Amino acid sequence: MIYLDNSASSFPKPRCVINAVDEAMRKYGANPGRSGHDMSIATAMKVAEVREKVAAFFGVKRSENVIFTGSCTQALNLAILGSYVEGGHVVCTTNDHNSVLRPLHELEAEGHISISIAKPKDNFRLTLEDIEPLVRPNTYMICVNHISNVDGMMTELEAIGEFCEQRCILFLVDGAQSAGHVKIDMTRSGIDLLALAPHKGLYALQGVGVLCFSPKAKLRPILFGGTGTESASLRQPLIAPEAFESGTVATPNILSLGAGLEYVKENFESINRRIEDLSTYLLYELQNLDGVITYTHPENSFGVISFNILDMPSSQVSDILNMKYKIASRSGLHCAPLKHKSLGTLEQGTVRLSLSGFTTFGEVQKTVKAIAKICEMAK
Amino acid sequence: MIYLDNSASSFPKPRCVINAVDEAMRKYGANPGRSGHDMSIATAMKVAEVREKVAAFFGVKRSENVIFTGSCTQALNLAILGSYVEGGHVVCTTNDHNSVLRPLHELEAEGHISISIAKPKDNFRLTLEDIEPLVRPNTYMICVNHISNVDGMMTELEAIGEFCEQRCILFLVDGAQSAGHVKIDMTRSGIDLLALAPHKGLYALQGVGVLCFSPKAKLRPILFGGTGTESASLRQPLIAPEAFESGTVATPNILSLGAGLEYVKENFESINRRIEDLSTYLLYELQNLDGVITYTHPENSFGVISFNILDMPSSQVSDILNMKYKIASRSGLHCAPLKHKSLGTLEQGTVRLSLSGFTTFGEVQKTVKAIAKICEMAK
Repeated sequence: MIYLDNSASSFPKPRCVINAVDEAMRKYGANPGRSGHDMSIATAMKVAEVREKVAAFFGVKRSENVIFTGSCTQALNLAILGSYVEGGHVVCTTNDHNSVLRPLHELEAEGHISISIAKPKDNFRLTLEDIEPLVRPNTYMICVNHISNVDGMMTELEAIGEFCEQRCILFLVDGAQSAGHVKIDMTRSGIDLLALAPHKGLYALQGVGVLCFSPKAKLRPILFGGTGTESASLRQPLIAPEAFESGTVATPNILSLGAGLEYVKENFESINRRIEDLSTYLLYELQNLDGVITYTHPENSFGVISFNILDMPSSQVSDILNMKYKIASRSGLHCAPLKHKSLGTLEQGTVRLSLSGFTTFGEVQKTVKAIAKICEMAK
Repeated sequence: MIYLDNSASSFPKPRCVINAVDEAMRKYGANPGRSGHDMSIATAMKVAEVREKVAAFFGVKRSENVIFTGSCTQALNLAILGSYVEGGHVVCTTNDHNSVLRPLHELEAEGHISISIAKPKDNFRLTLEDIEPLVRPNTYMICVNHISNVDGMMTELEAIGEFCEQRCILFLVDGAQSAGHVKIDMTRSGIDLLALAPHKGLYALQGVGVLCFSPKAKLRPILFGGTGTESASLRQPLIAPEAFESGTVATPNILSLGAGLEYVKENFESINRRIEDLSTYLLYELQNLDGVITYTHPENSFGVISFNILDMPSSQVSDILNMKYKIASRSGLHCAPLKHKSLGTLEQGTVRLSLSGFTTFGEVQKTVKAIAKICEMAK
């Protein structure tokens, strides 16, 4: 099988990640932060180590501001539902995923907030210019998708971050697709809330998400329960990170993130040069195929390439790639409906090929050949 | 190390669980329910298999009514926050864990509901008699802890379930401590919402929780995002299970639950006879030690034994057990403050020894000897 569905979940995982999970199961099986015995403390220290690593890698000043959740969606829900301002206004974008759009929509439907949706002027990058005209006096949050999971479109963070800082607006960045592919520094980019999907570009297991937050973001818990702190009180504690991690955390998944992060840190240049080279080649070849429409800008891919063949339903192309050529792609809307509205692909969806550091040139070449054959067949 | 902290997280895990996780990482690495390629479908089928197994094991009529969350706390939050009735009333109990008490308290503090707390008449079992006098015309939910994580006290479900059915009240059971130790049949016991902590008595990894619900429980989602369904809509879908599992689910953890459940099913009698025998022995020996106060009823243990030595702080006893004897126990309030209020141990906490199917007689014997020595020292 040729696996080109890494934006859904990266596969394979590096050996160090598999080993970390194995070690977690055999050595760090206690509940971290609950009991005081050796194994519980050793487990808690391993979890704390990963927290420190995440903080260092993403420019978070204090590791207490790194919260582990069960998924990036949970992290985004915490960011959005845990910080909304009654009667306030949010600017989000057409690049956003349903994990951002749906909690925002819920708040809007309940009458708590209003929303404006920024659309990039051209198909290249989303910038402050696309967002600024929508900002109102009661805008308390600007929320962007760092790299689109549909076509790889990047959002330029620095200028938006600076603008948010000046206006005292919270800056939420959905880094689900970007973490591991481009460097992110929360402090330097003025990000207040950064959500991560470690099972994608950080090669961790599914089952762990991360929300990093700045001191400016006054988060409220949205999940209530045992924290191992202030146990006598029925009121949810408010001190991070425990206040936001009620219940038992997913130790093996968190330790897999530690290993994955270490792997990405050590191999950052080589992973991403490989992805860039293969994406450039793949996109160039697809653009030369008669009948293929590509939606990804050549300078803007980060391993995510969307295309269609004539007016074939994207699911049909993906099915042929899977059944006839054993190539794993993804079709449809990729949970980002507004993006497809702006691309004009709400009906057809797109076929998405997404690469990882493990993708080989041979795999990409075979994929191009398969798509060429489907094109011929389609005509 | 002698590990007697299985109520915090069971350790070790059976080999079949470790193997299932390893297989998940190597063979089922795709995102289940997102893409249509072979690996994604194979992964989705494995997840669906576990859903079926959970449904069969706990007497849930339709497997769609089994929801995977990141933890039992998340399952309880979904049950409580996702079903509350504005202006309604809930009866919970002094046995409840903060994962129940804190979300209820939050709803009460926000003015949505009112709460009454049932207290068992004696120290043996909590029954309908303890609950019924507190029920009001606007009571929409009765919520009990099946087995207390502090002292093993059991709640008799059947009569309460029948009462709830007659009165059209939702019956929420926190099965965190009981699943795997006693048989639970949702349908037979009239349970509407059953929350599970698979990393305890079902030997799964941390990082997965379960909420099973009956058709009577009209759940609303509390987590919003991509579901792989109705992707063009910004509104959260409402069809279970996807509507309640926004984001990528924790495949390796869910597959570990499948293996753990299989293990428990095959070894149910032997695991629980062992736990019962060892608990009986342990409790008998502790009761014979001068200076030891036990809080667990001999017929009501299910592997959870709480005690203190004279007026020593429970943390001090746990620390000595850990440092001098390499015995892992847990001290303090175990996130169940009202239970300690009713036991009179809110200040001192209790030392908890909790057993699993892997606990040996030799380990228990050594633990008794260690506690005897601490008693002598304390006098």
